[in-house]
Order: sequence, then C-alpha cells, then structure tokens
Amino acid sequence: MSNSLNPSSLTVQMGAEDQVLLLPAVNDDHGGVVVHMEEPMDSNIFAGALKASMSQWKKEGKKGVWIKLPIGLANLVEIVVKEGFWYHHAEPNYIMLVYWIPETNCTIPSNATHRVGIGAIVLTEKRELLVVQEKSGRFRGTGIWKIPTGVVDEGEDICAAAVREVKEETGVDAEFVEVVAFRQTHKAFFEKSDLFFVCFLRPLSFEIQKQDSEIDAAQWIPVEEYTAQSLPQDTGLFKSISDLCLAKLDKNYSGFSPISISSSSCDGTRTPAYMYVNTRDLHHASHTATNRL
Amino acid sequence: MSNSLNPSSLTVQMGAEDQVLLLPAVNDDHGGVVVHMEEPMDSNIFAGALKASMSQWKKEGKKGVWIKLPIGLANLVEIVVKEGFWYHHAEPNYIMLVYWIPETNCTIPSNATHRVGIGAIVLTEKRELLVVQEKSGRFRGTGIWKIPTGVVDEGEDICAAAVREVKEETGVDAEFVEVVAFRQTHKAFFEKSDLFFVCFLRPLSFEIQKQDSEIDAAQWIPVEEYTAQSLPQDTGLFKSISDLCLAKLDKNYSGFSPISISSSSCDGTRTPAYMYVNTRDLHHASHTATNRL
Repeated sequence: MSNSLNPSSLTVQMGAEDQVLLLPAVNDDHGGVVVHMEEPMDSNIFAGALKASMSQWKKEGKKGVWIKLPIGLANLVEIVVKEGFWYHHAEPNYIMLVYWIPETNCTIPSNATHRVGIGAIVLTEKRELLVVQEKSGRFRGTGIWKIPTGVVDEGEDICAAAVREVKEETGVDAEFVEVVAFRQTHKAFFEKSDLFFVCFLRPLSFEIQKQDSEIDAAQWIPVEEYTAQSLPQDTGLFKSISDLCLAKLDKNYSGFSPISISSSSCDGTRTPAYMYVNTRDLHHASHTATNRL
Repeated sequence: MSNSLNPSSLTVQMGAEDQVLLLPAVNDDHGGVVVHMEEPMDSNIFAGALKASMSQWKKEGKKGVWIKLPIGLANLVEIVVKEGFWYHHAEPNYIMLVYWIPETNCTIPSNATHRVGIGAIVLTEKRELLVVQEKSGRFRGTGIWKIPTGVVDEGEDICAAAVREVKEETGVDAEFVEVVAFRQTHKAFFEKSDLFFVCFLRPLSFEIQKQDSEIDAAQWIPVEEYTAQSLPQDTGLFKSISDLCLAKLDKNYSGFSPISISSSSCDGTRTPAYMYVNTRDLHHASHTATNRL
C-alpha cells in the first residue's frame, strides 16, 4: 500500500508540466501523507518542492499532510508555516507540522493532553506506611510526610512507574497490587491536564536507603501518624489518600488491578497492554456466570 | 515576587556595560524566566536581545528559560534554536522552547505524554446495550457493534466526556455512574501513550438520533448479542468490555465513581477536580471506622 521512499532525498517526477521536485512522502493509513525531513536542505529548494508537492497532493485528493522537521532543520519551519501549516506537536528534537487539504471536517487527531503521575501507598501488616519528605515541591521544609510520588515516563506502564519511584526514592522493593483511585486535574502544566493514580503496593523489603538528590527524609511511620497530619492546603487529595490507607487496612477495599491484554499500536503491530479492573468483583461475576451455564 | 512586564515590548536596561536590549521576561516559581513573544520583531534585533538576555540571566543565576513563540513568529524559531534551546511542546498556534542554564540536573518538567479516550457502556434494566457502527476506524464496514467511544477534549473531565460522546453519537441522554476499568497503551499515536477509560452510564432517554457525520448506525441491542460478536482482532479490549457489561448486570461490580475535591492548579488557584474511587468500599470502610470510635 504505502510506497516507502528514502526520506532524506528529493524525488524527481515527470509531470504533465516540466520536471518538478517533490518532497519524499509516505502514505499514511488515513488518506494522508507523511514527510520526514532528515538531511539539511537549501530553504529555497525546499520551498519550491513544498509548493509543487502540495499541488500534487491536492490533485491526488490527499487529506492530512504531516511534515516532521528535526530541530536541526529549524530554518525550514517558517517556510512550512507560510504554506498554511500549523504546529501539531513537538518533542525536544523535532517539530511536527500538519495541514488538512479537504473541504470536509478536519479529522487530524489531537495532541497529547495529559501528563500522568503516580502516588504509592506502601503499607506493612503492622500498619506502617512508607513516607518521604521532598527537597522541593509545595511541602518542602514543612516537615509533612507524604507518600512517594513521581511522573510516569514516556512509554512506561503505571504499575511499573509506581514500583520504580518507590525503589528510587526509598530503596524499598515493592510489589504492585492495584490502583486504588485516580484524580484528574486541569491546567496543571500550561494548558495540559494531569492524571494522578494512587497505587497500593506490598513491600518486599523494609530497609530504607533514601535518594539524596530529591528526598530529605524517608521512613516507615504508623499510618495513624500520617493521617493525623494537618495540611496547609490541598486537603482534597491528602484526605482521600488517608481514607484509602485506612480502607485498605480496615476494610476489604478493592481497587483496579492490572490484567495483561494485547492491543494494536499505531503501526498495526500487536503489543501487550494492561487493563486495570476490579478483579475481585469481576472474578466473582465470571464465576457465577459459569455456574449459570 | 514576579515582576510582570508587557511581553510585547522590549525593555531597555542600563547595565555596567552600555545600554543593552533585553527580552521581556517574567520570573516563574522555579527560579526560571518565561518570555512570551507576541509582536512581530526584526530577527536581527531579536537575536541580539536574546544573546544579551541570556548572559544577563546566567549572571542572575536563573535556571530554566522558556520562550513562547506564536506561530506568526515562526521566523524566530531558528534563532532561538541556534542559541541552544530545544523544543518543549507545541500547540496549533505556538511553540514553546526551553533552555536549562545550571550545571545541575535539568528539572524541566516533561511534556504531556498521554491522550485520553473514553468508551461508554450504557445499559438499560432490560439488559439492552447502546451500540454504534462507525463510518471510520478499524471496524468500519464490518457490521460489528461497538460501544460509543471518543477522545476527551483538552480541559474536559472524563465523566463529562462520556456523557457528551453518548449524546453526540446517539442522541441519548445519560447519567455518568462510574469508571469500570481503564487501559493504558503505548505508541498509540507517534510516541505518545493512550489511556482509555471504560465508563458505565445510566440512560435518561431512549430515543436514538444518530450523528450522521461519524456514525453509520446506532441502536439498542440485547447485551448477549453484543458479547456474542466474534471480532477479527483486539479481542483484548472487546472481551474485557463484554465481561464488564455482564459484571454490571449480574454482579454487584463496583468501579470508581467521581468525588469532587479541590486542588491547586499551576497558577496556585484552587480549582475543582474529580477523584475517582471505589465509593462503595470506601463508605463501607468509613462507616465501620466511625462505629469503632
């Protein structure tokens, strides 16, 4: 279907008109084309090739046109914008610009909208909670104990991020059990939103080796000592986490635990993914359903 | 703390050296500065002012330097990149570039990493499920019934997005009850990850008025007819949704329902936010805890 060209070279095509230089384009699965510029190029040559390519793509009835410019080709950004393209997204080393050719509604998918963070509730059977004091952040210097938190890396599973952050900040090995709650906030970072997953983990080791760069102190404290802390602000989340600690200890509180399923990624390949469900209730249901048969 | 300047004008500052043109910068809360360019500017003047500003900020011990360029100033992107800045993120109408001055580890927060989508399970007491057939997407033309799905808009709550998508695609009014599961996948869109929340809604109206632009067909079908469908692929998610439909009908499956809490957004203001928790188990816990006192 999609004829892959060497993205780093221009292609020469004989048209009804004279010879025209076209940008190297690869068809996508949605009736559009993607141009991955790689090699530096004279801006005048690029400008001409872009114009010629655009009229060609319009003739061919293409829809979305994507142009990816590595940061080394920042000199070409202005030219693409002048052709009517707008920014779609950017990462440290490249910017992606996009244009929608048809008269019909633009179906260009939206950019990523959320950052994802985790908080880790690590509780012992002796009702001890693993807590830290951070060197930066809102609670810096307040002496307030908080659960280990962190940002989920790009491509990282939520359950893996929780185990990693606990290990990094406190040196404690822990086993992921379930997500017990999550919070969605808006405008957390520029216009972006934030999803914060409160995770419950079972400790596998207890000796603490705190991370010096980010953590002022780390220790096990009685969960009641944690819940008794009075906070200057943001009691919303803190109160919820306190309630969840007690709910895990004193009641059979069930969160969502990860089930491995397969899904298809953008390039069509099958990749493993985690579905987080209330497995206690679900297995209960399945079990009964089986009995019905 | 932060002395706000008119971002659209250059500032003139008398230094130990001669008069130097500096870019209009506002201090952020993390020891850095933010430059919001707004008015068009001659690229040579801008280049000089950027160099002078950088040495000034280094003298002052600033950390992160943010420069926001509206798309109309695309001609300045190359100049900022040549100063050593990299791309942080971009939206259709602007690009944000960033530079980290100190020798110490860069603590620039990461860009948004996830897109967020929803699927809506709308079930009647007569075991009927609201389903659609889409005009595009993987199941296009397959005759397979799926639940209404959609992307959560920027700044939109998950619970609001589920109600909106159901209304848009089918015309049915529904009340959000809870998130019954969620799936995290990676490389769903370029390098970005995807969080898909399966939501359970209670129908408030039953007459169907399908959305012509995206939906081929919409109707109520017996849930068993939905679960009996055999899918070409991605049975992971489909199987889970089928199980969850039955678990909601036949068992007291408990998901996470939204509780309104307050949180503080990046500008320090208090904004409402939703915490999604297993309220059935949580209230049960609280109740018992109260009895204990």
